[in-house]
Amino acid sequence: MNTGQQLAISDRLPRGSVNLSADEKSVIIVDQTELPNRFVEIALSTESEMVEAIYQLRVRGAPAIGIMAAYSLFILAGNIKTADISLFLSQLAKHAAALNASRPTAVNLSFALSKMMNAANKCENVGAALHALKETCYAIHAEDITMCRAIAGHGLTLLKAGDGVITHCNAGPLATSQYGTALGPILLAKEQGIEIKVFADETRPLLQGARLTCCELQRSGVDVTLICDSMAASVMRQGKISACMVGCDRVAANGDTANKIGTYSLAITAKYFGIPFYVLGPTSTIDMNCKTGDEIVIEERPATEIWQKWYSEPMAPAETQCFNPAFDITDHFLISAIVTERGILHPPFKESIAGLNL
Amino acid sequence: MNTGQQLAISDRLPRGSVNLSADEKSVIIVDQTELPNRFVEIALSTESEMVEAIYQLRVRGAPAIGIMAAYSLFILAGNIKTADISLFLSQLAKHAAALNASRPTAVNLSFALSKMMNAANKCENVGAALHALKETCYAIHAEDITMCRAIAGHGLTLLKAGDGVITHCNAGPLATSQYGTALGPILLAKEQGIEIKVFADETRPLLQGARLTCCELQRSGVDVTLICDSMAASVMRQGKISACMVGCDRVAANGDTANKIGTYSLAITAKYFGIPFYVLGPTSTIDMNCKTGDEIVIEERPATEIWQKWYSEPMAPAETQCFNPAFDITDHFLISAIVTERGILHPPFKESIAGLNL
Repeated sequence: MNTGQQLAISDRLPRGSVNLSADEKSVIIVDQTELPNRFVEIALSTESEMVEAIYQLRVRGAPAIGIMAAYSLFILAGNIKTADISLFLSQLAKHAAALNASRPTAVNLSFALSKMMNAANKCENVGAALHALKETCYAIHAEDITMCRAIAGHGLTLLKAGDGVITHCNAGPLATSQYGTALGPILLAKEQGIEIKVFADETRPLLQGARLTCCELQRSGVDVTLICDSMAASVMRQGKISACMVGCDRVAANGDTANKIGTYSLAITAKYFGIPFYVLGPTSTIDMNCKTGDEIVIEERPATEIWQKWYSEPMAPAETQCFNPAFDITDHFLISAIVTERGILHPPFKESIAGLNL
Repeated sequence: MNTGQQLAISDRLPRGSVNLSADEKSVIIVDQTELPNRFVEIALSTESEMVEAIYQLRVRGAPAIGIMAAYSLFILAGNIKTADISLFLSQLAKHAAALNASRPTAVNLSFALSKMMNAANKCENVGAALHALKETCYAIHAEDITMCRAIAGHGLTLLKAGDGVITHCNAGPLATSQYGTALGPILLAKEQGIEIKVFADETRPLLQGARLTCCELQRSGVDVTLICDSMAASVMRQGKISACMVGCDRVAANGDTANKIGTYSLAITAKYFGIPFYVLGPTSTIDMNCKTGDEIVIEERPATEIWQKWYSEPMAPAETQCFNPAFDITDHFLISAIVTERGILHPPFKESIAGLNL
């Protein structure tokens, strides 16, 4: 919260994919399901709208979900009609639980909501609680910007001009705020005139790589080439890749990492070719309560996302059974380094993560 | 050709995705781009229609393309208006070259066309050449049926009841005739009451797994689960896969195998988990002229197949640059066995392939 305290509460944060409305009655998000064809901002003011936006991935990216959930809880708090602090806190906790249940895998969601609840729980009256909630949600957002910039800086030390980087899903500004995590070093390199060539996995089934990463990198003038997820091995075989950089949704205490489905395959392929595989994310993504990746709950999503969504007509027989996990777990021994705002963690991760004293 | 000679030339072959029309003026194919939503058969009678059908994947699957090209060349031969055998053969060779240029990677196309040209080249007059071409194209088709059945039988020895098999792209009846190659053991198992659970990679960008393999397996009552290509690692991690079975478009003399893009990733992932990886195809897919996979030409296809085709609206900014190889090369040392109509080849493949005396 220290970074947040340096800002006046009413300071408007730089625009990202998530912001509080001027009247503080709604959270405004860039609806990421409309990209790349339409830039649509939507204002969410009820719990059901907020939960739907998270579940449908209108807002996505572990850090962005955390920021959005924090703003959402502040807005919902303002609608609780009671002056009784106990009643207020119990209703607030129900809202937090509903938001938290919208997606299970990314830890940032529950981390941000816990921070908000802790801030409110310390207060003796509703007015103070509302003030604390407001401070906290702005602080979470400000902190994310600071952390992403720090991650970008540390990550950039792993790259040099002319490198080819492959990335999966989208861990750029839309998924966070400003620099992003996995895309941070690349965007920072571009600012500094260092050319990095990026290969973006399209990231089936929801195509965040094609729809979002390509948009963000093109807008920034980065040389980006779109590939299907299954083409990474061919690109690596051609010697075009110096490093993989991906974000993360939850990192276990031993370094096992939950990230968008397909990350695991990419890491296995990188290992086969001896290409370093870097995970980038804030230390808030590390969940010391999960000893290993086996303890991380993997969200399964509807079959129709695979054979129906986006398409002009169904791409499989209607009765097709599917397995559609939204995330996978990358074994810690496939990961070369974890880049956090506090620096670069090296294997053995159990020790380097423990050293953070989270 | 011995299998073909057992059939009267006019015998109608069992229906598959490719057949000669009753009047022998056109080749009739199931338009595979219309599946799974519409079963459409189209009749092709001109060279440009035939080339377009191959390039656009209306007919696809290395063996099916070979059969279709053979029938096509016979039809085009019938349209050559000359009684001069030299002129006839030179015009025939031009048709063969045009058909052969439609797709570069699968060897069956050029193999079938060479067989046809060799048959015609032995003849002393146009009538005899037309007769030889007719015999040869029917024989190629009949031979494929026999070979697929043999491959299915050999492949089935590698499976047992309750096994989980992952397959990529489509190497079933649509891609060949009757049993298919990679799907042969599974369809044969089903006939024999042996239950195999199949996971079908959707196979981006052209979705042959979702559109074709799921259709074929469901129709046959096989338990099939559709996954995105990038989910194979998650399914393997869960212990659900006993073997991978894929087809092939060209096998080099050392066992390196060209197959649909994504096969290489799947093989690398299978190796990581210690799961056997089987390539199934007729010996006609082995190209002794290619010492290693590095000599196999990989077809690159339009970028729009990745971000536009099938979708109701574009899934990446219009100016997005893409890399879209249609095939990849799986290193021979990732392959556990190559299943042919003549039996199962084991490593070292350079020796076992040489032993075939192709």
